[in-house]
Amino acid sequence: MDVLHGINKASLLAALVAGGLALPVHGARPAKELASKPTVADVIKASKPSDWRALDPDNTLYMEVPGGRVIIELAPTFAPRHVANIKTLARENYFDGLAIIRSQDNWVVQWGDADEKNPRPMKSARATLPAEFTVPMKNDVHFTRLPDRDGYAPRVGHSNGFPSARDPKSGQAWLTHCYGMVGVGRDNGADSGSGSSLYVVIGHAPRHLDRNITVVGRVISGMPLLSILPRGPAPMGFYDKPEQHVPIASFKVAADVPEAERSKFEVMRTDSAAYKAAVEAQRNRGGPWTKVAAGHIDLCNAPIPVREQQ
Amino acid sequence: MDVLHGINKASLLAALVAGGLALPVHGARPAKELASKPTVADVIKASKPSDWRALDPDNTLYMEVPGGRVIIELAPTFAPRHVANIKTLARENYFDGLAIIRSQDNWVVQWGDADEKNPRPMKSARATLPAEFTVPMKNDVHFTRLPDRDGYAPRVGHSNGFPSARDPKSGQAWLTHCYGMVGVGRDNGADSGSGSSLYVVIGHAPRHLDRNITVVGRVISGMPLLSILPRGPAPMGFYDKPEQHVPIASFKVAADVPEAERSKFEVMRTDSAAYKAAVEAQRNRGGPWTKVAAGHIDLCNAPIPVREQQ
Repeated sequence: MDVLHGINKASLLAALVAGGLALPVHGARPAKELASKPTVADVIKASKPSDWRALDPDNTLYMEVPGGRVIIELAPTFAPRHVANIKTLARENYFDGLAIIRSQDNWVVQWGDADEKNPRPMKSARATLPAEFTVPMKNDVHFTRLPDRDGYAPRVGHSNGFPSARDPKSGQAWLTHCYGMVGVGRDNGADSGSGSSLYVVIGHAPRHLDRNITVVGRVISGMPLLSILPRGPAPMGFYDKPEQHVPIASFKVAADVPEAERSKFEVMRTDSAAYKAAVEAQRNRGGPWTKVAAGHIDLCNAPIPVREQQ
Repeated sequence: MDVLHGINKASLLAALVAGGLALPVHGARPAKELASKPTVADVIKASKPSDWRALDPDNTLYMEVPGGRVIIELAPTFAPRHVANIKTLARENYFDGLAIIRSQDNWVVQWGDADEKNPRPMKSARATLPAEFTVPMKNDVHFTRLPDRDGYAPRVGHSNGFPSARDPKSGQAWLTHCYGMVGVGRDNGADSGSGSSLYVVIGHAPRHLDRNITVVGRVISGMPLLSILPRGPAPMGFYDKPEQHVPIASFKVAADVPEAERSKFEVMRTDSAAYKAAVEAQRNRGGPWTKVAAGHIDLCNAPIPVREQQ
């Protein structure tokens, strides 16, 4: 995940300088330069192997599209039935040869079966499933709360690498619609989705979708293969000609791919001290480029570092 | 501006249904269906001519790139010196023949002069300018506050069509880094920018840049011409080969373009009752597709409707 933040080439260097103090200053111009402090890159460099976890091949999807592989980490804790159904669809080759059929600017890219007249038959996968918009909080034992306040939920943070929210009053938890999160398209009925139509967020987080859609995972690698797809000319960004469709060569569970062909990534544990430091590096950046530290981080701006397995 | 929000084709119809009640429900599943209520499209349809304002050609830029025209509305209230300098640069043909040189996923697209060895000379434009990160609140007489709380600033809302924030304690106001906002690249020095290097936000709002950069305006039309540009392979998304550069055929102040060649857009007045209704339509959506109304809207999710002039 790219976390460099400078705007000019010169600031690339500036972004690599490193410790200091930064309080939120809602002022005109800070009185003095901010001290430099560790960046996310510094935190990653100083992290220990135990701060990272490898992807579980049985809960990882590879979607092969023109240009390369999109890697999706599934979140069975939050959507057990949908995750199982998507894996069944993948194993029964449902998505192979289907296509990306929608690209709407600042919104989503979506794939599935565009042929409404002759839809691809499903084998043993379910055509609809009960909604999994939220789960009981007790099901998610890996939640690390962010101290930063959020407008959409009483509590937000990360659950084992996924941005999430929860409400102690209702006792429910849910994944949030940040950039790169993958959800299940549905019709008006809450229980009308199955995972045969999936989308990924490619713009500013549409958090109002939270608790309205079953969210099943997150793109770990390959977002630029999706985010640059030409926007569709039809309403809601759908492509209106078959030749616009972006073919999905294959869509597989990583565990079903020969080991030599697997991508080896690891994700920083979001319940680690290293992750806390990575978030703080973004919440209150040091100088010299930054002049005013934000003193806050939005859930969907908090980095979740991913790297090639060491 | 595209404000449709359904995820399946079927919900396109659902999104066009119209009044009801919606309180934030942080629950597992709402007890009953949400009543339908007006959408943003309904609000636009019901709006009056006086709810809209035309773009001022003297504060509008046309950037011609492969595929079409990017239209930028400038915000002289927030950055008078930079706006004037950018117009001087445009009028002295500074940008014509330069290129888009950077595209970083979920971050920015940036343009300017890639040739550091033989930089294009400036004529009467200034090579650096004092920072305009914030302005006195009293300078902005068109601020309409959003009631929704924000993590990055004590008050947020819209200033005559631009998302903005302010702090009564410091007495300062500033434009915010939402999707489509245009800012001035700079080096480490606060006063090192001029407007000769500009960027536009193409991902989740990097609000920590607020008050750290001079923000000069907003892309009104043409975002998809920029947001789909291949991401650059060099650090920070810079292109590393000249042939990757995306040429800027011309970059002009709209007032300098013959009237017949001008684009005719109008922006909903963000201090109008119509705009208040448009925001509410997004803050608390009605059924049948939406099952849980968010009860909140993030500043950068609030729509600012733009349409062809009526």
